[in-house]
Amino acid sequence: MEIRGDMLIGRAAVYGRAGALRAVDPASGEVLEPAFGCGDAGDVDRACRLAREAAPALRAASGETRARLLEAIAAGLLAAGNALLERAARETGLPPARLIVERGRAVGQLRQFAQAARRGLDAGAIVEPGQPGKLPPKPDLRSRRVAIGPVAVFGASNFPLAFSVAGGDTAAALAAGCPVVAKAHPAHPGVSELTGRVIQQAVADCGLPEGVFSLLIGDGHDIGLALVRHPAIAAVAFTGSRQGGLALLRAAALRPSPIPVFAEMGSLNPIFVLPHALAARAESLGAAWVDAVALNAGQFCTCPSLLLALEGEPLDRLRAAVVKAAAAKPAETMLTSAIHAGYQAALRRIRAAPGVAELATGQAATGPHAARLTLFETRADAFLAAPELSEEAFGPCALLVACRDLDQWFEVAHSLDGQLAAAMQLDEADLPLARELLPVLEARAGRVLANGSPNWVEVSPAMMHGGPFPAGSDSRATSVGLAAMDRFLRPVCYQNLPAALLPPQLADDNPLALWRRVAGEWRGD
Amino acid sequence: MEIRGDMLIGRAAVYGRAGALRAVDPASGEVLEPAFGCGDAGDVDRACRLAREAAPALRAASGETRARLLEAIAAGLLAAGNALLERAARETGLPPARLIVERGRAVGQLRQFAQAARRGLDAGAIVEPGQPGKLPPKPDLRSRRVAIGPVAVFGASNFPLAFSVAGGDTAAALAAGCPVVAKAHPAHPGVSELTGRVIQQAVADCGLPEGVFSLLIGDGHDIGLALVRHPAIAAVAFTGSRQGGLALLRAAALRPSPIPVFAEMGSLNPIFVLPHALAARAESLGAAWVDAVALNAGQFCTCPSLLLALEGEPLDRLRAAVVKAAAAKPAETMLTSAIHAGYQAALRRIRAAPGVAELATGQAATGPHAARLTLFETRADAFLAAPELSEEAFGPCALLVACRDLDQWFEVAHSLDGQLAAAMQLDEADLPLARELLPVLEARAGRVLANGSPNWVEVSPAMMHGGPFPAGSDSRATSVGLAAMDRFLRPVCYQNLPAALLPPQLADDNPLALWRRVAGEWRGD
Repeated sequence: MEIRGDMLIGRAAVYGRAGALRAVDPASGEVLEPAFGCGDAGDVDRACRLAREAAPALRAASGETRARLLEAIAAGLLAAGNALLERAARETGLPPARLIVERGRAVGQLRQFAQAARRGLDAGAIVEPGQPGKLPPKPDLRSRRVAIGPVAVFGASNFPLAFSVAGGDTAAALAAGCPVVAKAHPAHPGVSELTGRVIQQAVADCGLPEGVFSLLIGDGHDIGLALVRHPAIAAVAFTGSRQGGLALLRAAALRPSPIPVFAEMGSLNPIFVLPHALAARAESLGAAWVDAVALNAGQFCTCPSLLLALEGEPLDRLRAAVVKAAAAKPAETMLTSAIHAGYQAALRRIRAAPGVAELATGQAATGPHAARLTLFETRADAFLAAPELSEEAFGPCALLVACRDLDQWFEVAHSLDGQLAAAMQLDEADLPLARELLPVLEARAGRVLANGSPNWVEVSPAMMHGGPFPAGSDSRATSVGLAAMDRFLRPVCYQNLPAALLPPQLADDNPLALWRRVAGEWRGD
Repeated sequence: MEIRGDMLIGRAAVYGRAGALRAVDPASGEVLEPAFGCGDAGDVDRACRLAREAAPALRAASGETRARLLEAIAAGLLAAGNALLERAARETGLPPARLIVERGRAVGQLRQFAQAARRGLDAGAIVEPGQPGKLPPKPDLRSRRVAIGPVAVFGASNFPLAFSVAGGDTAAALAAGCPVVAKAHPAHPGVSELTGRVIQQAVADCGLPEGVFSLLIGDGHDIGLALVRHPAIAAVAFTGSRQGGLALLRAAALRPSPIPVFAEMGSLNPIFVLPHALAARAESLGAAWVDAVALNAGQFCTCPSLLLALEGEPLDRLRAAVVKAAAAKPAETMLTSAIHAGYQAALRRIRAAPGVAELATGQAATGPHAARLTLFETRADAFLAAPELSEEAFGPCALLVACRDLDQWFEVAHSLDGQLAAAMQLDEADLPLARELLPVLEARAGRVLANGSPNWVEVSPAMMHGGPFPAGSDSRATSVGLAAMDRFLRPVCYQNLPAALLPPQLADDNPLALWRRVAGEWRGD
């Protein structure tokens, strides 16, 4: 497969005529070949019409068919081999080892969604037999979930494989039976085209209609807004900035027929270090925090950007460990020039906040878009007085908030906006305090973890990667894990339907052997 | 309990100072006592702050506590006795027999939600034990759902008991553990105050914080918009017009922190009469359609406003039956003067559409707000050419669309917007055609029914009362049945939490005996 600068509209490769964009190697600043042709409103319209035409066939396709599609995409990603990994490295500056892990994650989640489709986890089947003898007679009611319709997918810059064109949102939408119209992230158009071609080929190989997948390319906001406003689009999945997510959400709400937008936006992912854990493990906790913040230049939505601890001698030991660990961290190349500039601006913003001091730095930056690890410190009262410190700063920086006492600590906890994750570092003796803190964190975060770093987001049926605003635009939605399908499925209730018309998911004899709730009891037979 | 014209803000009764509104008996036009004081932004703020303060306690309350609250409200509605029914009859013009049935429905759904809370159906518990030996180690992940936060409830005018202050949205929100700030429908403020006082008393009797429930009163849009814009509100439930729903949805999307709006708006609820059923039962189908349209002056969101059938002799028989059945139907009083005026305007709009003829009418109207049953007829091509015929016309009117052939019939089916319900009238020999029609209806309606009228919406775990726009603002949400709770619950994932900190829903030994998905299998032990 070759990178030609094309959009993929159904089975066609289309070179856009609304200007051009090029990828840049952030490590060198080198502009990469080829030039990508940008699409216009006509391209958006064709992709969306094809998606609408394909929707009934994909909605009706068996779980087995959807599973094979997802597995064919996974196989195609692996078959794309080093060419894909090398292009990803050049377009993102991410280290090759990390990209191999990320490809494994992308392949793994495609296969997990394939298994989910095969096992009918999308069905959500409920059977409530009628009671004709009752007064009034109770009708026979059965419900299952069906695909919501074509989904617009906006990938993230920081996961070119696992959360972009062939990433979790696309996997979840296809598993649910929804066609996908993806917009390539302009920072990695080559990876987008390569992975898009993998999906295009898989759709053809599985004999599905071409409109099941399209890939659009564009710089600026116009093409994305045109996509969200297209009447054929039924839902939007987005990972990125708060500003970008809000723009799409508002455009979707202002449509003549509004649609849901599932935007995963910013998060601070605070770590609460409880007193006994701090006293026992100050040094290792400090070093682990620095590792988590520095990883891949802090370019995780789950980067732990805030650490709360009580003042005292143990905190001094944590500080010393942070200073030592930070000094060993090399500067790392950031994803794009804009993200690098945003990081520098965030550092200036944090430095300018009253009461903030620099706690530690990593090695000085050398390359054109390298980011120096920077850890700041402030007191709880200064943190509470400066709302700008609660804004996400994307990159390898974080803030230690030293609390005078537990009252201050809880005050900070209560002040926090919605979070993707919140962590507690705790020992046995911290349990009473943890029990008090837990409901405060539950009310603010999609995921609460103990004694770990929030960075890694396991793909699991129990994962929740989302949260109250601004972590997510709909706090009920996750963009990682099998429940990510729920965003793209809607229930349909069947009332008194003759047995001959019932979909197999709801037939009396359960021919697909699904888990179903039958008269209130879950049954798998 | 007395009607005093008060708002209920937490435990206080507050007479609003931002103007007054009065209920009107639509049957007589008589203005009813007392005058209700309207609230202002300060009242909204106090109610919402109290709700925010009450949220943690209600979120943490046991299922048993929430069940008792709901049962106390149900008991209170019954104890309010004839005073409540009589006021409801005066404020709405609805017949007493219907109001008794509606009260039964309101009480019944409160009790169903109580049982759901008691049995922990809100929990949605998933347990995925960790695999520490794996590389990388799989963390222990468990998720359950928690209350989303305070919910703003906007009741419907057409169900003063079952879908208003103490109706399904309030029951679902309280069952989920969310405080409610309700806005009284200005058409039935007396019923709203009475039912609000029942809830206020139940909250106090159950020892819950006063902010669990408040009731605001206001005419015009200001108070509703202020409620939706208040930062303490986490979600909105609305039943009413498309215009009203869209206004709230857009206000919610433009907040600094957007929130979901679950608006149940208009629907045509088409009936597709299949050829063999038509030939066999033209007369009874025609009469049943008239009954369904005429019921309570057509003031159901599930009123079957459209009937599709193929031209021919059987359709002539259906027409004759419609004319005969309609002639016997008395005019009925509509809910309000504005709804009555809207109905007259809708009749003019339908009459003015090219190719529409009057098919049948009921008895002439006599009272001030009485509505005459009016059935229209048009051809499929005229229907397809006149988008205004696809707009909901609230009241006792409906449109027969005669199709020349099956191509036209499917063309009309494909042209339909989102629907709450779609019905097929079919006989055994119609099954092949029904099999073709079913996926078209599934893609457009929340509920598909065979051989029945959509009017009655059973309260059941399998019910779906919602659908693609404009039936619903989020096609995944239902406002009737136990799944209505899903709107107000968000998942939280717990990663590697010590057993001592796990909520009981997720503890290894399942002390609440909930249905849970454990390592992929549903278990109730």
